[in-house]
Amino acid sequence: MAKQIRYGMVGGGLNAFIGEVHRKALNFDTRAELVAGSFSSHADRNAATGEAYCLDPARVYASYEEMAKAEAAREDGIDFVSVVTPNNMHYPVCKAFLEAGINVVCEKPLCFTVAQAEELCRLSREKGLLFGVTYTYTGYTMAKVMKEMIAGGKIGKVVAVNAEYAQDWLLGELATGNNTQTNIAVWRTDPAMSGAANCVGDIGTHVENFIHYVTGLKIKRLLATTNTYGKALDLNANVLVEYENGANGAYWCSQVAAGHYNGLVARVYGDKGALEWVQEDPEHLRYTPVDGPTQVLARGTGCVKEKAAATGRLPSGHPEGIYVAFANIYRNYVSALIARKNGEDAAGYDFPTVEDGVSGVRFIQAVVDSAASNAAWVEL
Amino acid sequence: MAKQIRYGMVGGGLNAFIGEVHRKALNFDTRAELVAGSFSSHADRNAATGEAYCLDPARVYASYEEMAKAEAAREDGIDFVSVVTPNNMHYPVCKAFLEAGINVVCEKPLCFTVAQAEELCRLSREKGLLFGVTYTYTGYTMAKVMKEMIAGGKIGKVVAVNAEYAQDWLLGELATGNNTQTNIAVWRTDPAMSGAANCVGDIGTHVENFIHYVTGLKIKRLLATTNTYGKALDLNANVLVEYENGANGAYWCSQVAAGHYNGLVARVYGDKGALEWVQEDPEHLRYTPVDGPTQVLARGTGCVKEKAAATGRLPSGHPEGIYVAFANIYRNYVSALIARKNGEDAAGYDFPTVEDGVSGVRFIQAVVDSAASNAAWVEL
Amino acid sequence: MAKQIRYGMVGGGLNAFIGEVHRKALNFDTRAELVAGSFSSHADRNAATGEAYCLDPARVYASYEEMAKAEAAREDGIDFVSVVTPNNMHYPVCKAFLEAGINVVCEKPLCFTVAQAEELCRLSREKGLLFGVTYTYTGYTMAKVMKEMIAGGKIGKVVAVNAEYAQDWLLGELATGNNTQTNIAVWRTDPAMSGAANCVGDIGTHVENFIHYVTGLKIKRLLATTNTYGKALDLNANVLVEYENGANGAYWCSQVAAGHYNGLVARVYGDKGALEWVQEDPEHLRYTPVDGPTQVLARGTGCVKEKAAATGRLPSGHPEGIYVAFANIYRNYVSALIARKNGEDAAGYDFPTVEDGVSGVRFIQAVVDSAASNAAWVEL
Amino acid sequence: MAKQIRYGMVGGGLNAFIGEVHRKALNFDTRAELVAGSFSSHADRNAATGEAYCLDPARVYASYEEMAKAEAAREDGIDFVSVVTPNNMHYPVCKAFLEAGINVVCEKPLCFTVAQAEELCRLSREKGLLFGVTYTYTGYTMAKVMKEMIAGGKIGKVVAVNAEYAQDWLLGELATGNNTQTNIAVWRTDPAMSGAANCVGDIGTHVENFIHYVTGLKIKRLLATTNTYGKALDLNANVLVEYENGANGAYWCSQVAAGHYNGLVARVYGDKGALEWVQEDPEHLRYTPVDGPTQVLARGTGCVKEKAAATGRLPSGHPEGIYVAFANIYRNYVSALIARKNGEDAAGYDFPTVEDGVSGVRFIQAVVDSAASNAAWVEL
Repeated sequence: MAKQIRYGMVGGGLNAFIGEVHRKALNFDTRAELVAGSFSSHADRNAATGEAYCLDPARVYASYEEMAKAEAAREDGIDFVSVVTPNNMHYPVCKAFLEAGINVVCEKPLCFTVAQAEELCRLSREKGLLFGVTYTYTGYTMAKVMKEMIAGGKIGKVVAVNAEYAQDWLLGELATGNNTQTNIAVWRTDPAMSGAANCVGDIGTHVENFIHYVTGLKIKRLLATTNTYGKALDLNANVLVEYENGANGAYWCSQVAAGHYNGLVARVYGDKGALEWVQEDPEHLRYTPVDGPTQVLARGTGCVKEKAAATGRLPSGHPEGIYVAFANIYRNYVSALIARKNGEDAAGYDFPTVEDGVSGVRFIQAVVDSAASNAAWVEL
Repeated sequence: MAKQIRYGMVGGGLNAFIGEVHRKALNFDTRAELVAGSFSSHADRNAATGEAYCLDPARVYASYEEMAKAEAAREDGIDFVSVVTPNNMHYPVCKAFLEAGINVVCEKPLCFTVAQAEELCRLSREKGLLFGVTYTYTGYTMAKVMKEMIAGGKIGKVVAVNAEYAQDWLLGELATGNNTQTNIAVWRTDPAMSGAANCVGDIGTHVENFIHYVTGLKIKRLLATTNTYGKALDLNANVLVEYENGANGAYWCSQVAAGHYNGLVARVYGDKGALEWVQEDPEHLRYTPVDGPTQVLARGTGCVKEKAAATGRLPSGHPEGIYVAFANIYRNYVSALIARKNGEDAAGYDFPTVEDGVSGVRFIQAVVDSAASNAAWVEL
Repeated sequence: MAKQIRYGMVGGGLNAFIGEVHRKALNFDTRAELVAGSFSSHADRNAATGEAYCLDPARVYASYEEMAKAEAAREDGIDFVSVVTPNNMHYPVCKAFLEAGINVVCEKPLCFTVAQAEELCRLSREKGLLFGVTYTYTGYTMAKVMKEMIAGGKIGKVVAVNAEYAQDWLLGELATGNNTQTNIAVWRTDPAMSGAANCVGDIGTHVENFIHYVTGLKIKRLLATTNTYGKALDLNANVLVEYENGANGAYWCSQVAAGHYNGLVARVYGDKGALEWVQEDPEHLRYTPVDGPTQVLARGTGCVKEKAAATGRLPSGHPEGIYVAFANIYRNYVSALIARKNGEDAAGYDFPTVEDGVSGVRFIQAVVDSAASNAAWVEL
Repeated sequence: MAKQIRYGMVGGGLNAFIGEVHRKALNFDTRAELVAGSFSSHADRNAATGEAYCLDPARVYASYEEMAKAEAAREDGIDFVSVVTPNNMHYPVCKAFLEAGINVVCEKPLCFTVAQAEELCRLSREKGLLFGVTYTYTGYTMAKVMKEMIAGGKIGKVVAVNAEYAQDWLLGELATGNNTQTNIAVWRTDPAMSGAANCVGDIGTHVENFIHYVTGLKIKRLLATTNTYGKALDLNANVLVEYENGANGAYWCSQVAAGHYNGLVARVYGDKGALEWVQEDPEHLRYTPVDGPTQVLARGTGCVKEKAAATGRLPSGHPEGIYVAFANIYRNYVSALIARKNGEDAAGYDFPTVEDGVSGVRFIQAVVDSAASNAAWVEL
C-alpha cells in the first residue's frame, strides 16, 4: 500500500546535515514517502543517497531541471519537492519546480534578493501551489503555545522585545583566519553561495521570523550594525527595530559568541506580563504575569491550557527535540496537501509560507542596507 | 527495494504511547520496516493500526501466539518482534517468540518474577537469539559519554551515588482516591497487570539500570522503604544500596512528587571528580574534576572527546530528544542483527540486553522484599 | 550613647571563620555591642582580637571560666555570650555561662551527647535564660516563607521529603590522606574535638533542623549508613527517616561530593503541591501546586504574600546573602532579650533554641548508632 | 577607643532604602563610624535617624550646608561624607562638602549635566580629595575576577558585548498610569529630581560602568532608542555602542520588563572565549574558553586563581550578597583614606571614582541626545 504523499528532494546528499533532518522529519509521521531526488552534483553521492533510501534509480536525477520536468510528467510524480541546497540554489530550484506545477518546501533564507523572493511568491500564487519555508523553530509546541498566549492577551500589549541567536561555530575564523568547520558548510561564508549576509541570513532571519510568528508584530523600520572582523561577510550583528505599534526591539545574532551553540532566545514583554522561550530548552516557557511569580510552563502538563498544547506528542518530561519541531511543520504542510488533494480547504494549517520567506529576505536586505549606511534607519 | 530488517510488534495499538515511540524510533534509521503485528486485543483497533502502517492485512494477527507461529513459518518472516504490551504480558509474549526462534526486543520491566526473567534469559541463550530490553535512557549520547568518562577514570573511584526518578502523574491518586490519568495507563497501578511494584517497577528500575550502565557498579545489598498511602501498590520509594566496592548509594523514586515530570537524575561522585546527568536536560553533562570548576559538557561540541560523542546526530544546541535515545538503542540492536545475518560478530553493540532485564527484576524484587521486612537488608 | 544590648564572645579569634560571621551579623542591626571576649587560648591572638574590636583590655579574658565569673559580677556585664569555639568546648562553655546566669547563643551542634544537651536545656530553663543555637539557614527569609506556606496548607499533607547537604571540602582526604584545608578546620575530623560524627554533626544536623523547621514534622525513627573511607569519622552518610505522620524522608550529607560547595537542598512534597529551596540560591523558592506550573517565588516581590516576607530587608533582586540570614536569627534573639529586659513577653520570637539543639544531638546520635548497627532502625 | 575613620551622611533618613545599605556596608568592616548627618528635611525624621544611630544630637544637622561648615570646623570632624539623597541633590551637596575640604562618596548618577560632573571632578582634584561613586556592582568579588580574567587575556580581544539591566518595578505605570511603588521612590520618574533620564540614569548607567570596569573598553560613539510610553521619562531603552577597538555592543535597560527584578547581566565575547556574569547570581561567573566547555567558576573555590578572589570573605557556597559588594567598595575607599591619613600612597585602591561618575553622566547625556535625534550616532 502506498503512502498518501510522495515527495522528492533537491540537495541533501548523504552526510549533508539539513537534508537528513528533513527526511527524518517527514518520516516521523507516516504519510509522506521519498520517491525521487537530485541529491548531489556528484554522481556517486547522488546515486548512493538514492540507494540508501531505496529509491528507484530512474528517479534519482542528475539535475534539478531534469527532475522537475520528469516528475511533472509522471502520473505518479511527486506531490512536493523539498529544497535543501546551499542558499544560492534556492531561487532557481524553487522556480523550476513551481513552473513545473509542483508544490515546494524550501529551506530559509528563501533566496538572495527581494525581487527573487517576490517572484517566487507571485509564481506560487499564480500556479495555486503550496509553498512552505522551513523556519524550524516555529514548529516547537511551546513556540505555538507562546503565540497563542500572546494572541490571547496573556501579556497584554507588547512594549518591548529582546531576542537573540548566538552561536560559536565561526569563532575559529577570528583566531586563525580559517573556518575550522570548512568540511561542514564552507559555503556559508562565501558571498557567492550565501548571499549578501552570512550570520544575518543564516540565523538573524530566524529571530525576525520567530518574533513575528509569536507576536504578530510588524517591523516598521530598523537600523543595524554588523561586524565582519576583516572577513567577507558578517559574523555578528545588532539590530534595533521599531514595530508598527511603536514599541522597540533589539535583536542580536552572532556566530562568534563562545558559550553559545544554537542559542535562539525570544523574550517578549507586555504591559500585563512577559514570556521567554529558549530554543536549547524547548520544552519550557517562562511566563510572568504582571502580578505574579514567574511560572515555568512545561510541555505536556495539564496546566498548559492553550489549544496549541495538542501539538505535543509525548508526555511531559520526555524531551521531544528539534526533529519533532521539523516534523510538526511538515505534518501541517502535508495535511494541507492532503486536504487539497481531497478537494478540501487547505487554509488554516500552521506552517511558515513563502510570505514568511519574503519577509525574511526583506529583513536581511534591510539589515545589510542599514549597516552599509552607518546604521541609518531603513523602512520596511 | 526492501529494507534490511523486517520487524513485528505486539501491543502498541493506535494511540498507545510507547508503541508509537518504538515505531518512530525504528523509523529514524531507515533499515528496519514494520511488516507484521498483533497490536490490540480489540479487532478494530488492531486492524486500524495495521492499516495506518500500510501493513498487509494478512500479517495483522488476532493473537501473539498466532503471529509467532505464522511469522516463524514465513520465508520473509520478521527478523525480530518488539514487545510493547502492559507488563503482565511481557513474559508470555517474549517466551512465545523466543520459542518460535524469533529475536525479541521487550519494554521494561522484563517480567514479574526472577524465575520468569531467568527463563527468558536462558531461552534466548539456548536459541542463540538477540534479546534487547528498552531501558531507554542509556540511549542518550551524553549517558554514553558519562559511562565512558567513568570507565576512563575521569572521576576516579566511585565513592557515593545519589540518584532519583520523580514524577507527579499519580499525585491525583492521593487527593481524590482516583487515578486522574486512568485513560492513559490505569493498568500500572493494578497488581495483576503491573506486578508486585508500581513505581519501583515502572521507574525505579530505570535508576538501577542507568547507574549500573554508567558506573559498572554491582549492588551487593539494598534496603528500602516504600509508601502506598493506602493504595494497592507503591507510589514512592527510598532505597539505600551498598555496592560491591563498599560505597553506598541512595535511590529515590516517586510518582507523587509535584513539580517533577520525568525526573531521572543521576549523580555519581568519585574521589577525583563527579558527574551529573538530568534526563529532562539530556544534552548536557555536568562534570566537576577534583581540582577544577564545574564544566557543562554539551553534546556535539568539540570539547567532548569521548568516542561515544559520535552517537550524536545533530550539531550542538539542536536538542535531539528522547526519540533519538530510543533510536540509538534500536540502531545498535538492528546493527547487531544485520551483523549476525551477514555472519559477522554481533557482540560489542551497545544496547540493554536480557541480562539487564534480569537485573532489573531482581532489583524490583529485592526492594519489595526489603520493604516488606521493615527495611531489612536484602542481598542481591 | 550605649547600645541596648552588650554581648561577649568565646572563641572567634581573628581569622576564625564563624566568629567573624557572628560579629558581622550582630553588627547588622545596631542594637548589640561586643564588649567582652575570650577569643583564643593564644594570648597574643586573644589580645589582638579585642583590640581590633576596640574592647577594653580588662574585658579580654584568658579563659571562659574567668570571663563568665567576671562578667556576671559586673553591673554592666554582658547580656549574653556567643559561643563559637570548636564543638568540644560548646558544652563546658555554655554550662559555665548558664551557671553564671548569663544568656547564651551557641553554634551547632550543641554538644556531644544527649545527656549533655539535656543538661544544658534543663539549666537554661531552671535559670530562666534565653538560649539560642545558630542553625543559620532558618534565618533566610525564603526559609521562613516556606515554613509559613506549609503551615498554611499550600502543599497539603506532607507525603515525602528529599533533602541533602553536600560539600566537597574534604574530598582531598580521599585522594591524599591529608585534609587539604587543615589550616581552616582540622579539628572537624578529630573525634576528640568534633565528637562521634564529622559530616553528620557538621552539616547533617542542619538537614534535620531545617526540615523540622519548615515542616514541623517529627522523626519517629531512622536508619543510616555512613562512610568513613578508612578515616576516623564519617565523610558521607545516607539517612532514611520515618516521620510520625507515616511519611518517609531521605537525607544525604557528604563532604566528599565534588561540585557541591555548601549544598543544602530541601524538597518537601505534599498531596497538594511541593516546595524546593536551595541554600546557594536562597532568594528563590520553587513552588508547584498540584494543578499548576512550577512558580519561582522571589524574595521581595509582591506576589509573596506570607507574613514572613517582611523578614527581608532589600528589594527583590538584591541578593541578601548568608550574613543576613545570620543577622535575622540574632535580630530575633536580641529582640527577645530586649523584650525580657523591658519586662515584656519574650516568647514568640523566631530563632532556633536549645530544644532544637537537643533534637540535633539526638539525631546525630541516632545516625551514629544506626550506622554502627548495620543500618537498623533507631527510635527517636 | 575610637574607630579610625569618622563619616557623616546626607540623606538616608530612617526607612530610606539606599542610605541604610550604605550604613550597613560601612559597618561591615569595623573601621568607620557614623558620627554626623543631615538625614532628612523633616526635622523629626532627621532627629530620629540620629538617635537610632546613637549620634550626638549636636551633629545631626538641619541642612547639608550647615553640616559641611560645622564638620569642617571641628577638630574631630568627619573624614568623609556619604551622599545618598535623590539625584537632584547630588551636585549641590557634593560641591558643598568638596568646597569645605571634606572627602565625598556619592550615589550614582553623579549629577544631571556633564558640566556639573566635570566641575565636581575638577574640584576634587584641586582640593586633593578622595571622591568615590557607588557603582555597587563592581564591588562583587566575581566582577573583579571577571575584570582580571579579561585583563589577563583569558578571552582574548573583545569582539562583542551584550549587556542588560532589566527590572519590572515601573510596569504598573503602564497599566494604571500610577507608579505602584510611589512610597519608595516616586522621585525617580520626576524629571525635576531625577534629571533628563529615568531608567537610563538609574540603571542604564550601571551597564555602562560595569562593562567599562570589566573590559576597560571605551565607547567611541553610541545610538539609542528610548520609550516613555506617554510618561515624562524613559522606562525602556536600547543602546548600540561602538568601542574604540571597533567592536560593537548592545545595551538594554528597562523598568517595565515583567520577570526581571534587578537583572544586570554582562556578557563579554572575545576571540579566545567568553564571560558571563549575572547580578542576581553574583557568586558565579560562566567562562567558556574557545576550545573548551563552559565552566561555572564559583567564588571561594580553589580553582579561581585570580588575585581578586581574595576579595571574598566567606567559603564557597555561602552567598555573600549585595551588602558585601557595597562593603567591598567602602573597604577600599576607607583603606585609601587611612593610607592618606598615614601619609601613604592612596592610589591603587579599587573603587569607582568621580571619573567614573563623569563617564556615567556623559553616557546618560549621549543616550538622551541620540534618542532625541532619531537614534543618530553621538560621539563620546
